[in-house]
Amino acid sequence: MKNYKIVVTGKNGIFDPAGETSKNALRNLGYDGVESLRIGKYVELETQDDVTGAQVEEMCEKLLANPVIEDYRIEVVQP
Amino acid sequence: MKNYKIVVTGKNGIFDPAGETSKNALRNLGYDGVESLRIGKYVELETQDDVTGAQVEEMCEKLLANPVIEDYRIEVVQP
Repeated sequence: MKNYKIVVTGKNGIFDPAGETSKNALRNLGYDGVESLRIGKYVELETQDDVTGAQVEEMCEKLLANPVIEDYRIEVVQP
Repeated sequence: MKNYKIVVTGKNGIFDPAGETSKNALRNLGYDGVESLRIGKYVELETQDDVTGAQVEEMCEKLLANPVIEDYRIEVVQP
């Protein structure tokens, strides 16, 4: 088995309503020191050994991220 | 400024419909080697220097995660 951790985040300049709402909610709770907050997606992927890193990248391009508005990075989890 | 990366994931045994759907979609696209896929939340938080780690933990407990069904881990980004 191979394990990957994938982080998908909005590209710079793309509006992030969930992050903005959470930031304002935290400030309303009294955490005035919160300057910025952005929310992305975190994916834990487990594959069979014959799946290549290039294929995982394809999965990100096709399905897990929207490359028009999102960046992603793939981290291989060492066994 | 301080920077934190927070990963929020469903606890073991909590059903993850988004992950399940993505897994099936990838298999339908031909990626038969996908064994499991779980989706969580990724938060990039920037705060003023006087915000403590304990306060960030509080933010997770109160708002960023649902501690009943989710785990979270906080990583301090070294400047």
